Amino acid sequence: MSGPVITALETHDVRFPTSRELDGSDAMNPDPDYSAAYVVLRTTGTVDGHGFAFTIGRGNEVQTTAIRALAPYVVGRGLDDLGVLYKDMVNDSQLRWLGPEKGVMHMAISAVVNALWDLKAKLEGKPLWLLLGEMSPEEIVSLVDFRYLTDALTPDEALRILQEAEPGRAARIAALKVDGYPAYTTSPGWLGYDDDKLRRLCKEAIEAGFTQIKLKVGADLEDDRRRMRIAREVCGPGFRIAVDANQRWDVGSAIRWVNELREFDPYWVEEPTSPDDVLGHATIARALAPVKVATGEHVQNRMIFKQMLQAGSMSVVQLDAARVGGVNENIAILLLAAKFGVPVCPHAGGVGLCELVQHLAMFDYVAVSGTMRDRVIEYVDHLHEHFADPVVIVNGRYQAPLAPGFSAAMLPESIADHLYPDGPVWRDEVAGASVATVTELPGREGAA
Amino acid sequence: MSGPVITALETHDVRFPTSRELDGSDAMNPDPDYSAAYVVLRTTGTVDGHGFAFTIGRGNEVQTTAIRALAPYVVGRGLDDLGVLYKDMVNDSQLRWLGPEKGVMHMAISAVVNALWDLKAKLEGKPLWLLLGEMSPEEIVSLVDFRYLTDALTPDEALRILQEAEPGRAARIAALKVDGYPAYTTSPGWLGYDDDKLRRLCKEAIEAGFTQIKLKVGADLEDDRRRMRIAREVCGPGFRIAVDANQRWDVGSAIRWVNELREFDPYWVEEPTSPDDVLGHATIARALAPVKVATGEHVQNRMIFKQMLQAGSMSVVQLDAARVGGVNENIAILLLAAKFGVPVCPHAGGVGLCELVQHLAMFDYVAVSGTMRDRVIEYVDHLHEHFADPVVIVNGRYQAPLAPGFSAAMLPESIADHLYPDGPVWRDEVAGASVATVTELPGREGAA
Repeated sequence: MSGPVITALETHDVRFPTSRELDGSDAMNPDPDYSAAYVVLRTTGTVDGHGFAFTIGRGNEVQTTAIRALAPYVVGRGLDDLGVLYKDMVNDSQLRWLGPEKGVMHMAISAVVNALWDLKAKLEGKPLWLLLGEMSPEEIVSLVDFRYLTDALTPDEALRILQEAEPGRAARIAALKVDGYPAYTTSPGWLGYDDDKLRRLCKEAIEAGFTQIKLKVGADLEDDRRRMRIAREVCGPGFRIAVDANQRWDVGSAIRWVNELREFDPYWVEEPTSPDDVLGHATIARALAPVKVATGEHVQNRMIFKQMLQAGSMSVVQLDAARVGGVNENIAILLLAAKFGVPVCPHAGGVGLCELVQHLAMFDYVAVSGTMRDRVIEYVDHLHEHFADPVVIVNGRYQAPLAPGFSAAMLPESIADHLYPDGPVWRDEVAGASVATVTELPGREGAA
Repeated sequence: MSGPVITALETHDVRFPTSRELDGSDAMNPDPDYSAAYVVLRTTGTVDGHGFAFTIGRGNEVQTTAIRALAPYVVGRGLDDLGVLYKDMVNDSQLRWLGPEKGVMHMAISAVVNALWDLKAKLEGKPLWLLLGEMSPEEIVSLVDFRYLTDALTPDEALRILQEAEPGRAARIAALKVDGYPAYTTSPGWLGYDDDKLRRLCKEAIEAGFTQIKLKVGADLEDDRRRMRIAREVCGPGFRIAVDANQRWDVGSAIRWVNELREFDPYWVEEPTSPDDVLGHATIARALAPVKVATGEHVQNRMIFKQMLQAGSMSVVQLDAARVGGVNENIAILLLAAKFGVPVCPHAGGVGLCELVQHLAMFDYVAVSGTMRDRVIEYVDHLHEHFADPVVIVNGRYQAPLAPGFSAAMLPESIADHLYPDGPVWRDEVAGASVATVTELPGREGAA
């Protein structure tokens, strides 16, 4: 074993009181408090690894408890083989019962795996996208767990995909350093905004160089038609306007609702129904074509992505950096998307997700798909000020991060301020709320 | 609101050191410590509600933390409408991010929902199967969350299924009280047993009146062929012998492996691959017919069951009492199975799962499917001595439980003895293990 050894795994329950504003409100998540179950890996060396699972408030303490359960799998170990470390966590004979490979325990693995990659990239002195983008095809394949994938993608096929993309790597790395990677913005489209704010934010998005925007839909059809009409008026014909239902509909209602929006030319419909419903998404995709179906931020693991690609359920793969098993499983998902020829447009927003996914999209461009065609990274302008190496958007494009690591580290003072329930941002509200809860709950039941 | 109000939610981390024996070993779970993240709901009345999520050891503390996160949803509330209470927990706008409806957070909901039903059945003075079996079709439909189901099952269709089964209810209740419900046994088939023990346990199973047994397979093909040959010799032609791979295979290897066992006439193959793989199970089912495909114990929610039924992925629905959202979601799954005409043979074993699922199978017989044809409840003879109202098996059949409640309550002394890490069963081992962990971990990495 070369290099430093991990000596401790620390967690922090960090929550931002975003529900006090209407930023981030959608049809299923009306009042999110964007939160991070944050993990720091301490080492015998001078650098630490940082990672997190993203949640939207309540239950963030469950997520931090799950991350702590992984301490025995990393403490005492080095960073020589993150493929082995990842597979040891995912395949632990007892922990896997809590998923397997889904939900809280899998998101915890994601946080720890990403922290390991943050640490490794810092030790190598490279941003993660470049570290991965310079690995050999064989090294990259060794990071993936092909269990349950081989009916759709074998290790040999994965190797060939990576080998075919090898020739242009240097040119693409250079291009990223100059021009970055295209983004789209969700900022105009939250449900809580009035029409004037929507109109103003659409204009600002175009002026800022974005070539796609996204509107939240699904709460009220007439509202959605009015908002889509306004956005189309401001953005003009041909401009890509995606809509996002955040899992609000059943299969039949998804088809009916989006048909009512067709005259405004939606580019994709995102999360029309349950993220678990492979067959339902396929039915919706057939009924709504040429409107694309996009999903992925809540897709739990590579097995569901595999099936959605096999069944034609998705035309856009929206991988999330911190829900599946971290960097390693996302490499599997990038390879599956390349195999099926479907573009990857990562999910971002929340807190810190933009910072993470830019590395995955740029790695995809360098070493996997080799193209940016029809690919954009989501951008939401929330909470970047809390990160040590925040994303930089210029003319609607993510600039390639150059600092070593995975851009995952939050500023120490941001962590301290937002600790739940004892940090200064929460202390008074939590103390008040417990009194309110006690007096309010019997009333709630009585009213039902 | 009538009746008592819930005043507190308590949790206990209860673990049985079953890995010290080879009972319970299979191809994916070689060393389970059967555990319960146990919950007690205290009330203003004289009875309490008991429930639990089943885990196999490590991570049980994550599961208890998740259950505690649900306290605000039940404390201060009564039991008038368990449909509303269930939907409030499942659809909480922040907690659902941790699933949605899968993994640790969903299993926590299961534990609490089941404890609510235990409490309600005790208050009504009836065993749960009878309480549910005497409800009106309309009441039963109101307990189900039809979100994401309506492309396969609407509330009206569910109502018709229940109404059609109404006429024979009284006769079936009487039949259950006399004859019980058929069981099959997994006890002969654990991987750790030698051939003589397998032979002896097969004989004992037949002598005890069971008409089906199950063998664990998937670790070594030659071993499996030898064990199947022995079991078939002892049980004779036509006797139902199921095999269970516990998710060990990819799609292709499942088909190849089971084809090698065909000469021994396996009745069903259980969990051939990932429980998330709807399309993979469908491919396996087509290739292996007439050998049936059974799965469900790790199927996360009604959406995956729905798709498996739509796609022809399963010929046997093995619902689990404590993984999906408890009684309410299992009613949805029973209705889906009835709609598609697929028999339900519940998963059991572990700790306390036999106690719970017998109620669901008996309710299905009384009020949903109305038949026992090709239906059996799994039986494993582990750990029943720790329950206040343990299952009773006579001549290979579960006897209908008659005590009020859901048979979920563990004996107080069993809970106290097995508390982790401070109960008497664990105290010394845990103290020893922490020393071993510290000295062992660098060595493990050094050897890799």
